[in-house]
Amino acid sequence: MQPLKEKILSEGKVLSNEIIKVDAFINHQIDPLLMKGIGSEFCRRFSDTEITKVLTIESSGIAPALMTALELQVPVVFARKKKSLTLRNHLYESKVFSFTKKEVNHITVSKDYITKEDRVLVIDDFLANGQAADGLMDIVEQSGAHLVGIGILIEKAFQEGGKLLREKGIRVESLAKIASLEDGKVLFVD
Amino acid sequence: MQPLKEKILSEGKVLSNEIIKVDAFINHQIDPLLMKGIGSEFCRRFSDTEITKVLTIESSGIAPALMTALELQVPVVFARKKKSLTLRNHLYESKVFSFTKKEVNHITVSKDYITKEDRVLVIDDFLANGQAADGLMDIVEQSGAHLVGIGILIEKAFQEGGKLLREKGIRVESLAKIASLEDGKVLFVD
Repeated sequence: MQPLKEKILSEGKVLSNEIIKVDAFINHQIDPLLMKGIGSEFCRRFSDTEITKVLTIESSGIAPALMTALELQVPVVFARKKKSLTLRNHLYESKVFSFTKKEVNHITVSKDYITKEDRVLVIDDFLANGQAADGLMDIVEQSGAHLVGIGILIEKAFQEGGKLLREKGIRVESLAKIASLEDGKVLFVD
Repeated sequence: MQPLKEKILSEGKVLSNEIIKVDAFINHQIDPLLMKGIGSEFCRRFSDTEITKVLTIESSGIAPALMTALELQVPVVFARKKKSLTLRNHLYESKVFSFTKKEVNHITVSKDYITKEDRVLVIDDFLANGQAADGLMDIVEQSGAHLVGIGILIEKAFQEGGKLLREKGIRVESLAKIASLEDGKVLFVD
């Protein structure tokens, strides 16, 4: 997706061979028009599927998932990384290890909001090792819902998450695939 | 705002005299069309101001803040409750005590994204004791930016946050003001 790639080139900051900071437009400051375009693009790419629910994980997934859900006119659910005090039972639970933050997050989703009748599109900002995607897929599986696919803003194609998911037959649509961050430069796959 | 009030009545769950659960459409599952309407309503209510940035706090503030920012065509920034590993310095910091979660959150915003030239609209889902609003206002003050006002989805008018803010001369626009949650019933101020 060209506008996202251009934004990555102009405002992304390569911090190491593995890490690019996109705080200027995705996960701290958010560019709403870019997110609207991202929502339309996911809607277009998954237009052959019937999605009843968009699932993401707090916090950075919320903006693109919301814009996708708005375009699809379906609800969006975000997995929580902490248990809410007002929502303690009746939960799907899974674990996500964050390589960036070096911590395990227990993620939860209320059983009220994903059920076996749902056809779920998972949305997240990054795909690197695939840990967050695995956790969200685990929750979809526990619910008995059908996973339509996974939509990703930025795939680090030099890490193995995307490859492993596609090998399992899961449809992964990434709007920007980064081949390399070496020498402080962003190189896209295409 | 009528659609929000109707949603609160039909899908909100009163858990105690102080707590109403709105996980079905605001802070776990999100209704995108309702959020779009909320964004338009805030835009309308603050149409006499010139807003350059919307500021909120993760996670539940992101959806309404994003929709408001989309309507205003300005960026949105969400304060983080944890420090990012890729963003450790150059931060405004404040503290927010959550009565619901019984914990202190250190909130941070990068100095890159709120500056003294900004005119900031603060958006949050709930206003009860005003702790989150205070933390966000503290950050706006540190930045030297101008606070245009505060937009709230649900104000618990039986708690004192809104009163205290208005006494300070701060413009607070709440889309649904709850007068009481007693006997398991939602009573609005109007």
